[in-house]
Amino acid sequence: MDMREMTEQMEQLYQEKRFTDIKAILAEENPADIAAVLEEFKVRQQIMFFRLLPKEKAAETFVEFDADTQEDIILAFSDTELREVLDELYLDDAVDIIEEMPATIVKRILKNTDPQTRVSINKLLEYPEDSAGSIMTPEFVNLKKNNTVEDAFKRIRRTGVDKETIYTCYVTDESKRLIGVTTVRELLLHDYDDMIEDFMETNLISVQTHDDREAAVGLFDKYNFLALPVVDMENRLVGIITVDDAMDVLQEENTEDIHKMNAIVHLSEKPYLKIGVLETYRSRIPWLLLLMISATLTGMIISSFEDKLSAMIILTSFIPMLMDTGGNTGGQANVTIIRALSLNEIEMNDIFRVVYKEMRVGLCCGGTLALVNFVKMWLIDRLLFGVKSVTLAVDIVISLTLLIEVVFAKAVGCTFPIIAKRAGFDPAVMSSPFITTIVDAISLLIYFGLASAILHI
Amino acid sequence: MDMREMTEQMEQLYQEKRFTDIKAILAEENPADIAAVLEEFKVRQQIMFFRLLPKEKAAETFVEFDADTQEDIILAFSDTELREVLDELYLDDAVDIIEEMPATIVKRILKNTDPQTRVSINKLLEYPEDSAGSIMTPEFVNLKKNNTVEDAFKRIRRTGVDKETIYTCYVTDESKRLIGVTTVRELLLHDYDDMIEDFMETNLISVQTHDDREAAVGLFDKYNFLALPVVDMENRLVGIITVDDAMDVLQEENTEDIHKMNAIVHLSEKPYLKIGVLETYRSRIPWLLLLMISATLTGMIISSFEDKLSAMIILTSFIPMLMDTGGNTGGQANVTIIRALSLNEIEMNDIFRVVYKEMRVGLCCGGTLALVNFVKMWLIDRLLFGVKSVTLAVDIVISLTLLIEVVFAKAVGCTFPIIAKRAGFDPAVMSSPFITTIVDAISLLIYFGLASAILHI
Repeated sequence: MDMREMTEQMEQLYQEKRFTDIKAILAEENPADIAAVLEEFKVRQQIMFFRLLPKEKAAETFVEFDADTQEDIILAFSDTELREVLDELYLDDAVDIIEEMPATIVKRILKNTDPQTRVSINKLLEYPEDSAGSIMTPEFVNLKKNNTVEDAFKRIRRTGVDKETIYTCYVTDESKRLIGVTTVRELLLHDYDDMIEDFMETNLISVQTHDDREAAVGLFDKYNFLALPVVDMENRLVGIITVDDAMDVLQEENTEDIHKMNAIVHLSEKPYLKIGVLETYRSRIPWLLLLMISATLTGMIISSFEDKLSAMIILTSFIPMLMDTGGNTGGQANVTIIRALSLNEIEMNDIFRVVYKEMRVGLCCGGTLALVNFVKMWLIDRLLFGVKSVTLAVDIVISLTLLIEVVFAKAVGCTFPIIAKRAGFDPAVMSSPFITTIVDAISLLIYFGLASAILHI
Repeated sequence: MDMREMTEQMEQLYQEKRFTDIKAILAEENPADIAAVLEEFKVRQQIMFFRLLPKEKAAETFVEFDADTQEDIILAFSDTELREVLDELYLDDAVDIIEEMPATIVKRILKNTDPQTRVSINKLLEYPEDSAGSIMTPEFVNLKKNNTVEDAFKRIRRTGVDKETIYTCYVTDESKRLIGVTTVRELLLHDYDDMIEDFMETNLISVQTHDDREAAVGLFDKYNFLALPVVDMENRLVGIITVDDAMDVLQEENTEDIHKMNAIVHLSEKPYLKIGVLETYRSRIPWLLLLMISATLTGMIISSFEDKLSAMIILTSFIPMLMDTGGNTGGQANVTIIRALSLNEIEMNDIFRVVYKEMRVGLCCGGTLALVNFVKMWLIDRLLFGVKSVTLAVDIVISLTLLIEVVFAKAVGCTFPIIAKRAGFDPAVMSSPFITTIVDAISLLIYFGLASAILHI
């Protein structure tokens, strides 16, 4: 059903107090859609509708709400209701929710979970924010190597209902160390009395709890996993990361990179309209200030050339074009390299190949731009508009500046992210706004240098 | 095993002609890793090693090679060898490979596939490049509604080995229309003689073959699917998209967005080092040219103000700072909105909320920048360095320009992508380099306007 249609229909049924019909509609729909529709209603109605959901679907829907709605609903809940939803949640989802809640609600949530779950939740809450441990769930299907396929299926049937995924099963030894992996697919293709250890995969790929979550997600991308095991320092299996969570992290990391590349501090993973003006301000002002202050450098370069500029004021009108072109061309090389680094397409020791390639690309781009500019200035500015101050020498200075600055901009743009990564920083921070400031300064120096030499001013 | 270690060990075993040992190593490793290691070797060795792989793993490894290596290997293959690898490939992988190959090799591939597969491949090749059809595979587990759970498992055991995923099973009627979905998880939690139609999910979410692949991938993100059914115009099930392919597309779309945001035409999905200098040039020069030409506008604005600038040359030295700040601040709003649009966080009718928010953020940012600049110019430029031309009036002009241009830049930056999307374009094209040109012009007009008014020049 279309979402708007569903909202209208539910509103009408609500007015007519036909709750059984609402219940029937909700039972048909997908949790993600129900959450989106319910968020259109007032809190009182939301809670009414939410109570009409079947137990399991209620928990799945709850996970899809944004943090504000979750908070409203928890506040309206009795302890019994809260416990019912919590019982149905996967542990990693419960932890995600808790991380967004104010302290009083966290206390109430923890009070209403059974002691064993509480211990697990507290353990998960302790992992650093961007670690593999923080996105894993401790609920997985655990087998022993001397299980048969039949044992395995029995175990899945008995415990699978509470596991986030059952399709990848993990084999551990008596000290809980991970020794093998198998899949339901493998189980289905083997005979009932085959032993797990005879066909389990023993070439294991796993991450440690404190590894960066980005590295974990990279493994999904590379190996096409549905789930990835997470082990502690002693190689004991403590949890798994599932592909749907990996995909969420991938999107978050991409957003973070895009923000960093554009001088935005990534403060929150909330959707745009949920972030207040002040928080948005705080995420944007630091780099703006820094970049404004560092632009003092270009101002100083221009000042020191002041008397020459006033002698030949035509040179001023090309400053924006030269600076924009430098920024754009450096930015192209820059983001290409940042992205290639984050996709692991290039490594540290490729730096010379990269610089060599970028300088050749720079020569081609710079050459084209210089040529087009040369012809344009002569035909249009000089001949068509009759601007007398555009002399051949001025044309040559501008065009030559373009050629040289583009090569420099490409070289600078591609080098900084690689150096940043080698130094242990996130390459995305060495991104185009930052590069622009450097390229601006270099471009101006080239420009004034050439002007002095060729125009003798 | 570490990749470098594995490469060295294989090189040594190759020298000593200990091929059985190489075979043993290869049997242990993961296809993605084998492909990465084999690409380090010369073609002759690559083919030797490749022939040592067990049949199924050979096909999986083949998929992981880059296009150049795939071509080399196919050229070295006998028809029998080629047929063996092709038999093991999933259809969507075969199509991906064919799309990268020169015509002669495509012919040879098609000649060596059985007629039925050839028909399927040709059909898949016909879907438009960015369509859902182009990333689907026609190999899925197909059930009937009157099947029992036992029937289903029998069918999976019999045919599952050739399907890319078995975990989601599709129920179709006699005219192949999709009427239900179930999962191996559901099957495992039901009794052997339960009927599929009694518990299959009938609230179906699917895409059409000609839908945009980005929309299909968005559904994975929203609903946490492992596979998504693809139907034709008559709602007949023709294929499925699996989560690993969705993840690849997600990364490609993100790369494409990042490139577009930075004035790069996205020509190819090849990794950075595989793209030649000329292709890189072709992807970068169009926007550079366009932006250089459009910067003529800023040049014209400066020219028209030439005599006033020469009267007060200090104003020139602030042009780069004002333009960079305008560009940076507009760029922040711009990429935030492009990203929010692509994550479906905002819609067309949010435009007024977005502009209202951005203008308030602009006031905060602009206010801070103006204040800091005002104090900095007075304390440092005037008092510390004793620059006489920095008068109170000049300081006011610059600071006020900052405040006003930042508000404008935020408003322009956030509006263009939304309008572009409404007009049916990709919002990422209306991105910061493009915005910068507009913001530059506006900033200069504000600057010179204020200078005329306050400084009476």
